[in-house]
Amino acid sequence: VTNVVITGGAGFLGARLARDLLAAGSLDVAGGGDRPLSQVTLLDRVPVPPDLAADPRVAAAEGDLAGLTAAGQAGRDALARADVVFHLAAAVSGECEADFDLGIRANLHATEALLAACRAVGTSPVVVFSSSIAVFGGSPEHPLPAVVEDHTLPNPQTSYGIQKFIGEQLLADYTRKGFLRGRSIRLMTVSVRPGRPNAAASGFMSGIIREPLAGQRAACPVDPDTEVALASPARAIEALRCAATSPDDAWGGRTALTMPGLTVKIGDMVAALEQVAGPAVTSLIDWVPDPVVAGMVSGWAARFRSDRAARLGLAPDPDFTSIIRKHLADTRT
Amino acid sequence: VTNVVITGGAGFLGARLARDLLAAGSLDVAGGGDRPLSQVTLLDRVPVPPDLAADPRVAAAEGDLAGLTAAGQAGRDALARADVVFHLAAAVSGECEADFDLGIRANLHATEALLAACRAVGTSPVVVFSSSIAVFGGSPEHPLPAVVEDHTLPNPQTSYGIQKFIGEQLLADYTRKGFLRGRSIRLMTVSVRPGRPNAAASGFMSGIIREPLAGQRAACPVDPDTEVALASPARAIEALRCAATSPDDAWGGRTALTMPGLTVKIGDMVAALEQVAGPAVTSLIDWVPDPVVAGMVSGWAARFRSDRAARLGLAPDPDFTSIIRKHLADTRT
Repeated sequence: VTNVVITGGAGFLGARLARDLLAAGSLDVAGGGDRPLSQVTLLDRVPVPPDLAADPRVAAAEGDLAGLTAAGQAGRDALARADVVFHLAAAVSGECEADFDLGIRANLHATEALLAACRAVGTSPVVVFSSSIAVFGGSPEHPLPAVVEDHTLPNPQTSYGIQKFIGEQLLADYTRKGFLRGRSIRLMTVSVRPGRPNAAASGFMSGIIREPLAGQRAACPVDPDTEVALASPARAIEALRCAATSPDDAWGGRTALTMPGLTVKIGDMVAALEQVAGPAVTSLIDWVPDPVVAGMVSGWAARFRSDRAARLGLAPDPDFTSIIRKHLADTRT
Repeated sequence: VTNVVITGGAGFLGARLARDLLAAGSLDVAGGGDRPLSQVTLLDRVPVPPDLAADPRVAAAEGDLAGLTAAGQAGRDALARADVVFHLAAAVSGECEADFDLGIRANLHATEALLAACRAVGTSPVVVFSSSIAVFGGSPEHPLPAVVEDHTLPNPQTSYGIQKFIGEQLLADYTRKGFLRGRSIRLMTVSVRPGRPNAAASGFMSGIIREPLAGQRAACPVDPDTEVALASPARAIEALRCAATSPDDAWGGRTALTMPGLTVKIGDMVAALEQVAGPAVTSLIDWVPDPVVAGMVSGWAARFRSDRAARLGLAPDPDFTSIIRKHLADTRT
């Protein structure tokens, strides 16, 4: 059987990943063979959604990650049985810029505590770490290259990006030492995220689609010419599953893997929305420049060449209209 | 006046840096103007050398770095007055491979504690972090390029290298936030180090010169064809001073700067020793392969193109015979 632990398991990606895994009913961890899913343990500071709580294969533990994974705690017991751990829990970019100590605690120290707990159980589980393209950034002295490739030097320009990049390094060293089998996957900005806005600086990339489709106004803090790289929720989940299921050889080493992204201008996202839903919907977007958000977003990479991901069979979304249609299909069910 | 704090101030590089600064009598911190040296505070777990302890401008505090820099402690008071902090304290590569927890504590957590203390004093001091070329490494999937350049992606293959690279990231983010003015300088392997062997995997690069010159046998754990990159103690000190004194613009951003190194084969180092001191001296070298050390050393970079360092006026040692002659001159005094 296969046991899974998901940190941040009550969040949007964590809950969706859990539902996908439970629906599949089995998982092939690192190419070791497909085995029935026995238990999915969701660790989070907030309660898990009711549909997941009702599944007899789901266990949930609520609290701070460092506390949950300490000896004698439910999370630690779940880690001892885990074949694969998805570490998705994190404070988001906007929060970390506003509160430096929160980012250090929630992203750096909680990750350290989780890795130490995974080492302490002594079973060397597969650990999938959700890193982010926020590790890439441009500064005046070291501008981003036109296209980010697999070996581009990260140069994070946010605390969130720094903390994710440090997490990648820790995971690589724990893996080299044999304490666990780490796979760092750099997720794209996910759009369209369902639910309510969060404090991520990238949140508007979902908000300007999601809110107008729901008949609500939404602010766009950046210029329509701003180019960004995105992935649909389904592609992000696919990348996380790929990280968990790939054999070591296919995964290709301890450095982080950047998932493929769709490069699109904000203005073209809005044009796609108009094409799918009409001008009455796009008229609900208010163009309200926010220099802080615009500064963060303009420092992020928007064009990627993801050779390593392509070899694993990962592909970007084909276009933004397909992303909108997926979102509509998801929210109708 | 200028106040200086040196962590690892009782170590070889720290003590030598302190002596150089005290002999100069003044320091121009980050291009702000040359000012008389008022106090040099040495923080270390071991006592400082007697010549430094006797200097009225020297203060010393003995203990664990995290403890020394906590509120109410001598180190914290010194940081509050410091114009520049040199962070040299570290567990070395061999120790960190043998004892993972030691490396995490001495290199990662102690660095975090120091940076937090520098932030807490609220004066945004210049902080020079001694990183290392151990951040570079080759793995089967991501071999080192033939020449390491300023923007080469580090891919550390030791815990020491991982911890140094994480320190660079933390320093960059503390700097971006304005908590301090950080400069990470990646030091070359220093040869010839005086004194006794340490637990660094690179220690033999000094030992095979120093011990035979002192009439003692020394083991060389790697093949004579092994290529390495080195710098003399004087060049390493010069690089640390350059990091402290360069104006922000000249320093060139928050990413780490790699100091220049002399590329040399181990066999050519021994040939230079024979040229300077004769065959009776080199006959004291025992060629005793050590696969663990050889594995670590072969993963390190040996050829560098250090454009950024060159723009700051830093240059490699001209050849290895000059390094040996410097060592002889240093140890005669």
